[in-house]
Amino acid sequence: MIKYPNNMTIEKNKVSKNTKKSKLGQSFENIINNSNKIYLAKKVACIYKKPTPIQVVKVSYPSRNHAKITEAFYKIPSTTDYNGIYKTKYIDFEAKSIKGTSFPFQNIYEHQVKHLKTIHDLGGVAFIIIEFSAINKAFIIDINDFYPLYFSKDIKHRKSLSLDFLEKNCLSISSNVLFFDYLTLVNKMYFGNKNQ
Amino acid sequence: MIKYPNNMTIEKNKVSKNTKKSKLGQSFENIINNSNKIYLAKKVACIYKKPTPIQVVKVSYPSRNHAKITEAFYKIPSTTDYNGIYKTKYIDFEAKSIKGTSFPFQNIYEHQVKHLKTIHDLGGVAFIIIEFSAINKAFIIDINDFYPLYFSKDIKHRKSLSLDFLEKNCLSISSNVLFFDYLTLVNKMYFGNKNQ
Repeated sequence: MIKYPNNMTIEKNKVSKNTKKSKLGQSFENIINNSNKIYLAKKVACIYKKPTPIQVVKVSYPSRNHAKITEAFYKIPSTTDYNGIYKTKYIDFEAKSIKGTSFPFQNIYEHQVKHLKTIHDLGGVAFIIIEFSAINKAFIIDINDFYPLYFSKDIKHRKSLSLDFLEKNCLSISSNVLFFDYLTLVNKMYFGNKNQ
Repeated sequence: MIKYPNNMTIEKNKVSKNTKKSKLGQSFENIINNSNKIYLAKKVACIYKKPTPIQVVKVSYPSRNHAKITEAFYKIPSTTDYNGIYKTKYIDFEAKSIKGTSFPFQNIYEHQVKHLKTIHDLGGVAFIIIEFSAINKAFIIDINDFYPLYFSKDIKHRKSLSLDFLEKNCLSISSNVLFFDYLTLVNKMYFGNKNQ
């Protein structure tokens, strides 16, 4: 735990011990969540990770006013991981952490890509952040650039985005930091490089 | 189930059988969710209900790639029920259905009221929708109007908002409809009564 001056508590690599699922990409998720806490404390942006959707099947009440879920299943998210407001704009993105050297398209659902396109078409800011954990580097790709690659008939582009492709075509920042300031990338992409 | 021309399926008063919690206000929640599906199909807005946050404690794997949650608890939501994009603006609101003739302030968490104020301060559209189920009528109140009442030192205003107060001060629409077009209220409040 890191204590910030304003009593804000930042969780460092919190990993739930009992769930395999929550370990996947948890570390990158945590640094984004921590950054979002800092943005909120600074009144720069209000961006939250949506809760994981869970289908509850059975609930017991071991004591009054205390519900205990005894059977439930993970559901596929309808939308993306993160959304919120920044510089008065609606912002929406998916964040992925990759161990290898390419981003396989199977890591993101088709309906999530379409959701991001819808957000763009409605005037929002929509993108994907892809972190390569081996080199601690994260790239940002706008949905309007990603969408045609994802749905390309060209088989070469159909399966994945290579690190090399992202290096050549996308903005990036280090993810090996306490404060992962991804909104600097958003500024460059969508707000003409102005300061926060 | 109602079948719409574009194969969109609208759920009518779906109530989960096994969870007490999910029955509370479920009917009003469903009509909002259905309206949001219609807005999305019409490309008018993209607004979703956030999943209920759940703290997962134990997971079993009865078969490969199939996680079954066997112990979990409901968590208090960090933010509000609904958010999304409408007319390029970030929109964020809490929706409550009331059986009686007043809206008790204990029905909404203090941190949710503060969250809505933050959204307003960052340039977003933030409000609460309050439905009175006995009369099938829903009111909209902007967070800037609600906030001072909620945090008022005046004990008269401190506990609840009466139906009478809302009738006199707030815009309303019928909630006894298949398509609960609450964005008409949002238009009147925030977009100078222009059509969608």
